[in-house]
Amino acid sequence: MIGLNFTGRTQVIRQYMEEKGIKLSLIWDPDNQYYLSGFRAIIYSRPIVTLIRESLIELIIPGLEEAHAREKANVDHLHVYHEQLDKGKQEISYQDHLTEILNKYPSGTRVGVELGSLPSNVYLYLSSFGFEVVDIGNKITQMRTIKDPEEIERLKIAGKLSDHAIGESLKNVRVGISELEFDSYGDQFLLEIASREYPDELIGYANWTCSGIKRSEMPHLYSSTRKFAAGDVVVHSRQVWFNGYRAENERTFFVGTPSDKQKDLLKLAIEAQQAAMEHIRPGITAKEVDYVSYQVFKKAGYGDYVNHRVGHGLGLSEHEEPYLRFDNELILEEGMVYTIEPGIYVPGLGGYRHSDTVILSKTGSFSITEYPREIEHLLF
Amino acid sequence: MIGLNFTGRTQVIRQYMEEKGIKLSLIWDPDNQYYLSGFRAIIYSRPIVTLIRESLIELIIPGLEEAHAREKANVDHLHVYHEQLDKGKQEISYQDHLTEILNKYPSGTRVGVELGSLPSNVYLYLSSFGFEVVDIGNKITQMRTIKDPEEIERLKIAGKLSDHAIGESLKNVRVGISELEFDSYGDQFLLEIASREYPDELIGYANWTCSGIKRSEMPHLYSSTRKFAAGDVVVHSRQVWFNGYRAENERTFFVGTPSDKQKDLLKLAIEAQQAAMEHIRPGITAKEVDYVSYQVFKKAGYGDYVNHRVGHGLGLSEHEEPYLRFDNELILEEGMVYTIEPGIYVPGLGGYRHSDTVILSKTGSFSITEYPREIEHLLF
Repeated sequence: MIGLNFTGRTQVIRQYMEEKGIKLSLIWDPDNQYYLSGFRAIIYSRPIVTLIRESLIELIIPGLEEAHAREKANVDHLHVYHEQLDKGKQEISYQDHLTEILNKYPSGTRVGVELGSLPSNVYLYLSSFGFEVVDIGNKITQMRTIKDPEEIERLKIAGKLSDHAIGESLKNVRVGISELEFDSYGDQFLLEIASREYPDELIGYANWTCSGIKRSEMPHLYSSTRKFAAGDVVVHSRQVWFNGYRAENERTFFVGTPSDKQKDLLKLAIEAQQAAMEHIRPGITAKEVDYVSYQVFKKAGYGDYVNHRVGHGLGLSEHEEPYLRFDNELILEEGMVYTIEPGIYVPGLGGYRHSDTVILSKTGSFSITEYPREIEHLLF
Repeated sequence: MIGLNFTGRTQVIRQYMEEKGIKLSLIWDPDNQYYLSGFRAIIYSRPIVTLIRESLIELIIPGLEEAHAREKANVDHLHVYHEQLDKGKQEISYQDHLTEILNKYPSGTRVGVELGSLPSNVYLYLSSFGFEVVDIGNKITQMRTIKDPEEIERLKIAGKLSDHAIGESLKNVRVGISELEFDSYGDQFLLEIASREYPDELIGYANWTCSGIKRSEMPHLYSSTRKFAAGDVVVHSRQVWFNGYRAENERTFFVGTPSDKQKDLLKLAIEAQQAAMEHIRPGITAKEVDYVSYQVFKKAGYGDYVNHRVGHGLGLSEHEEPYLRFDNELILEEGMVYTIEPGIYVPGLGGYRHSDTVILSKTGSFSITEYPREIEHLLF
């Protein structure tokens, strides 16, 4: 597998900084830090900061991440801070390193940050130096919105693994198992396959399963220990990431025999998804995709039961641009990756939503999640 | 199970606001929002805000969370924003609601926020109204640091479940299974027990497993598809949360026969943990606990291989106060909950760390994670 082009990405940011007269950028968001440096920690309660200067990319990291960063981070220098008594005369917080670096820049220096994720106290600290703090978050968002071939390779693997997982969970549907047990059948199978086919790689996953009329009416709920019962409609979300790159795969299914009305609602959701998938192509606006799918529900008299957009981008983050929302004028381009997941939630009848992860190519789009969508495959 | 005292918590914040002349508080951190309102979403890419005014606690939420919030949120009012074409003439973002509320307050009003988690762009927006923005994050942190009996009940269940999970994973240790497969045995067993014993509850879990000399030298790594090999030392972290409240349970074990040197290192880590557990009691400082445990390593000549504090608080967050760190002067009190997890990481010999979750009571402390710590239970 070809590595990700961290150096090229940093060069793009540096050029942008030069155009904007920005001397130093401080990257806070973990996904953005991974995108630029290749380094990701499990937890950031000990802050980790990526700094980009004219000729360097550097990390400020806690001592317990030093060996990890030496192995994984594609950076020029590590600034390590310590939390050990006898090293307590050296730097003991990220701020010690940051202050030393900031002191080299005169008041009025333009400093780049992500205004949407930098905590306010860090913003205030930067401002106390008299710096002009400017946003570069939108630039990184823009870069991340177009996936390169190496990212798409990872996404496709994630998509394939998600199909395996969803299939295995569905093989185990029965009255009396809980939502969480249902999820875990898929997890275990997924990890078995991934361990065999992709040695020494990172696989992550998440699920949520909303079972029964009442719970499925709520689009986003953590899976619980509620047990499947006869007559349940179930909305199952299966997410898998491969070396950080995420695919989402969601299916609505029935435990026992649904009413004709319920079947019609699932068919309608499938039709709305199909309409969006067929319509989408480079050059149209994000909002047009939402419109096409929403009209399917509206014409059938169910427009009032739509409470979310038709899809969202994904990649390193669970939700990212492009947001396929009724008011997003963004023009869709080749290399964008997003979900198509129109849903309706009808009180007393339950929730209905499939979600697939789709890549936009020159000529149209293709789904990297392929588990069958038709109702005959979703009756248990 | 007795419910959590959301109303009482809000009253404490309101009284604090009154003392400080704060008219309105805007809570951004998801764990803090859950602590005060009882509402938690899976994802916050559509922002959710908790507002506390003199007589009201309110949520600003997206349409897809409305039914969920009506069921779970202990608040006086919901402000719902929409992402559906035909509702697009109403509020379409959290800012629409926020602006309407903020417009009711004159310039100079004191507004409470968590400066450590509020994004800078929201801070700047509040400042644009001429408000005096002040931190209330430390007050909420302080409240959350002392657990009440209802929180401790949830933590104990999480601790018990984590013991079951770690035991099941360890039953399945063998050469050739991957770190992720090892984790998943514990997950599946945990979910089976939890589904049987605690119907209709939320269970969450996370693991990371660092296997082999080289990987175990790095304290925090995501589990991978690396397969266990004979001669591995493995540091396994098992975390379980029950209705949001987290226990951490970590064990170091051996696949095959360790060298005498390796056995000594694990015994040393166990001794350091024991020393801290025996020393801790209400009235001492957090740093004293770190000192006691660090001295065990130092006297044995391994002080240089310590790269993290002896423990951290936990509860709704994975890491929270009290941080048991060499420079933390915080006085420990009854009701605090924290890990005790001294570790050493020796190049060429691997990493050694057990972690237990401990509750501080009037008379001392007790661990809510009880899986055997002695080396004879950790040889496979």
